[in-house]
Amino acid sequence: MNVVIAGHYITQFGELWNNSLVDLLEEAIKGSIKDSGFKESEIEAVFVSNMGAGQFDNQLHLGAMASQMIEGYPPSLRIEGACASGGLAMVAAQNALLSQKYKTVLVVGVEKMNDADSSLTTKYLAGAANYSSEKGSTFPGLYAMLANAHMKEFGTSREELSSIAMKNHLHAFDNPNAQYHKNFSIDQISKSTLVADPLCLLDCSPITDGAAAVILTTKNVEKKNKKGLKGINKKRATIIGSGHGQDSLDLANRASLLELAATTRAAKQAYKMANLEAKDIDVAEVHDCFTIAEILATEDLGFIKKGQGGKAALNGETTYKGKIVINPSGGLKASGHPVGATGIKQIAYLSSLLEQGKFKVALAHNVGGSGATAVVHILTI
Amino acid sequence: MNVVIAGHYITQFGELWNNSLVDLLEEAIKGSIKDSGFKESEIEAVFVSNMGAGQFDNQLHLGAMASQMIEGYPPSLRIEGACASGGLAMVAAQNALLSQKYKTVLVVGVEKMNDADSSLTTKYLAGAANYSSEKGSTFPGLYAMLANAHMKEFGTSREELSSIAMKNHLHAFDNPNAQYHKNFSIDQISKSTLVADPLCLLDCSPITDGAAAVILTTKNVEKKNKKGLKGINKKRATIIGSGHGQDSLDLANRASLLELAATTRAAKQAYKMANLEAKDIDVAEVHDCFTIAEILATEDLGFIKKGQGGKAALNGETTYKGKIVINPSGGLKASGHPVGATGIKQIAYLSSLLEQGKFKVALAHNVGGSGATAVVHILTI
Repeated sequence: MNVVIAGHYITQFGELWNNSLVDLLEEAIKGSIKDSGFKESEIEAVFVSNMGAGQFDNQLHLGAMASQMIEGYPPSLRIEGACASGGLAMVAAQNALLSQKYKTVLVVGVEKMNDADSSLTTKYLAGAANYSSEKGSTFPGLYAMLANAHMKEFGTSREELSSIAMKNHLHAFDNPNAQYHKNFSIDQISKSTLVADPLCLLDCSPITDGAAAVILTTKNVEKKNKKGLKGINKKRATIIGSGHGQDSLDLANRASLLELAATTRAAKQAYKMANLEAKDIDVAEVHDCFTIAEILATEDLGFIKKGQGGKAALNGETTYKGKIVINPSGGLKASGHPVGATGIKQIAYLSSLLEQGKFKVALAHNVGGSGATAVVHILTI
Repeated sequence: MNVVIAGHYITQFGELWNNSLVDLLEEAIKGSIKDSGFKESEIEAVFVSNMGAGQFDNQLHLGAMASQMIEGYPPSLRIEGACASGGLAMVAAQNALLSQKYKTVLVVGVEKMNDADSSLTTKYLAGAANYSSEKGSTFPGLYAMLANAHMKEFGTSREELSSIAMKNHLHAFDNPNAQYHKNFSIDQISKSTLVADPLCLLDCSPITDGAAAVILTTKNVEKKNKKGLKGINKKRATIIGSGHGQDSLDLANRASLLELAATTRAAKQAYKMANLEAKDIDVAEVHDCFTIAEILATEDLGFIKKGQGGKAALNGETTYKGKIVINPSGGLKASGHPVGATGIKQIAYLSSLLEQGKFKVALAHNVGGSGATAVVHILTI
C-alpha cells in the first residue's frame, strides 16, 4: 500500500510578529487541505508536530486545537521528539494509514518561537539534551564538540563549514517563504560572532516562527483528481522509504563523535524499504541546524565519503551543479527552523519540487536534539 | 490481528521526593519488560506519554530518554494530548502494531509534578484550555461549570458528588500503589475547602508523581509462555476495542454542557469495534479528575442513564456490590493523577484485574483537558 502526499502547504517562515501560534496552525491546515482537493470532512485524523508551545505559549493539547479547526472534529494527537518532531509525526501518521484505520490524514507542524524570551529559548532547546544541559552545555556547544572532532580527524576547515551556510543562503533565493534572502561570503560567515568555538553565528540556524502541513492518503489521488477537482489535476509524490533511528542523548555515551548513528540507522531502514541506495537520490533536505550537522548528514546518509563532507560542499558538489542538491529550500540555516514545522516543511518542499518535475527521487532527513533521534523519508514521483 | 497486553507495571503514585522523572521512567520500563518475559532486545519501539516534563523538568525529547534505557536503542517518540496523553499513546502504539511494522512495543507514561512550583502547575494545567484560560478559567473552574449545569438540569446534589470521592478513596485500599489510603465521609468531603463552587478540595484529583508501562504485542504470548519463561506462564488480556474522540477545547463552543461529546464519540467506536454494549462491561477505570467528571463518564459511556450518575453512585451502583465497578484502583481521585501516566495506569491496572480472574470485560476511559479529547479502550481475557 502506497502513502501519497496529496497536498502540502508551507507558511512564511521568519519573525512573524503578526501571527500567533493558532494563526500559523490554522493557515497550514487550511492551506494543505485546499491544495489536496479533499473536503475537510474527508480528513479522518490529524497528527500535530510541535516542540515548545507548552513553554513558549502556555499551550499544550495542540491536537485538540488542530481538530477543532476541521469540520467533524477528527481524532488528533501531538507528537514530540525535539527538533525531529515533524519527522516522527510523519512516521506516526503513516503507521495509522498502513494499519488501515484511516485512508486520509493531515500532518501539521508548527512552532512560534519569537514571542518567548531568548533565555527561555536557550533553556528549552538545551532541555532536549538532559545530562549535558545539566553540565552547562547548550546546543551550539554540543555541535561545536562534533565540529572539533571532525576538524581534528579529517582536517575539515573553517572555510568548509562556511561553504555550507553560503550555499544554503544562496539556495534560499528559490524559496519565497524562506526567513532570509541574503547572500553571505565565506569570509563574512567565518568572521561572524563566535558562538561556541568553532561555530560562529552564521553557522547556526535561526529562531523562527512558521508552520507546514501535508495531506497523506492511501487513496488513488490521480483517479480522484481526474474525477473533476479543478486545478488539482496533478501527479503527486509517494513515500517509498521511511526510517527512524535513535542514539544516546548524551555525546559522552556515543560510540563515535564522527557520525550521528541515529542517522545511519534511520537511513539504512529507509533505503532498504525503498530498495534504493544513496547514489539514487537526486535531492535532499537535510537537518543543518549547524553547518557541521549538514557535513555529518551528507556523509551519514551516504552521499559523500566519510570525512569528505566539508570538502565536497566547498567544491560545489552539493549544489545544482554538483552530484546531489542538498537543501534546495535553504535548509534550516536560511529557510529557518521553526522546530516542530521543520520535518513537515522538508516533506512539503520536496513534494513540490517533485511535482514540478525538477527531480525524480528525494530524501528528507530530520534530527532531534544533538542526534539522539533521526528520521529519514524517501519520496518519488 | 489481536493486540495483547503482555506485561505491565505501575510505580508507587504520590509525592515521590526521592524519585526523579528519569527514575520513574526507568522503573516502569524495566518493570514492564520483566513482567512480560520478553527480552529487552525484543522491544521494537517505544511510545512515551507525558504532558509537562518540558515545563516541570526542562526535559523534552523523552522518547530518546526512554530509548536509551533499552538495549539496542529502539525507535521512540513522545505523544501528548493533555491528560489523555496515555490513552493517545496506546492508540499510536496499536497503529504501529496493526500496520505490521512491529510485533512488540512498549508504552510508558510518566509525570513528575511535585517538584514544580504549584503556581506553575496551575498555569500549565490551564494551558490545555486555550481561550478559556486566557479569560481566567482554571481546570477546577471549568469542571465547576459542568457540575453546575448538571446540578441545575438533573438535580444532582452535593452529597452525590461526595459519594464519588468517598467510593474511590474506599477502593484505593485495594491498590497498594495508590497515593492515598484514607477514608473520608460524605460530610468531610462536602465540607472540605471550596475550590470552585460547587467543587471542594476533596472533589479534585491530586498532584501526583508516578509512571506506568505496558508491553503490547501481536505475538501469541500464551504459546511463548508455554515455551518455558518461568513465572510468566499466565493468560494475558487482549485489546478488543479502541476509540478516540474530540470536541471543542472551549466549553463555550460545545453543543451541550451535560455530556462530554468526545467521550460518547470514543465510546461508540470502541463498542462497535468490540461488538459489545455498555451492559457487557464488568469494570471500568474512568477519568475522575473531578467528581463531576466521573458522573459524566458513567453516563456518557452508557453505564448509567443520563442525569442519574450522581444518584447511582450514592446508591452504591458503581461499587463491587452494584451493577458495575467504577474505578477499582481508586481512580484519579485516590490513586492519584500523574498526568502522562494515568491513561497507561488504567490499562495496566485493569489488565492485572483481568489476569487475576476478577472480571471478564473491562473498559478504560481517559480524558484530555476539560473534555476536548477522550480515548476509550475495551479489554477482555
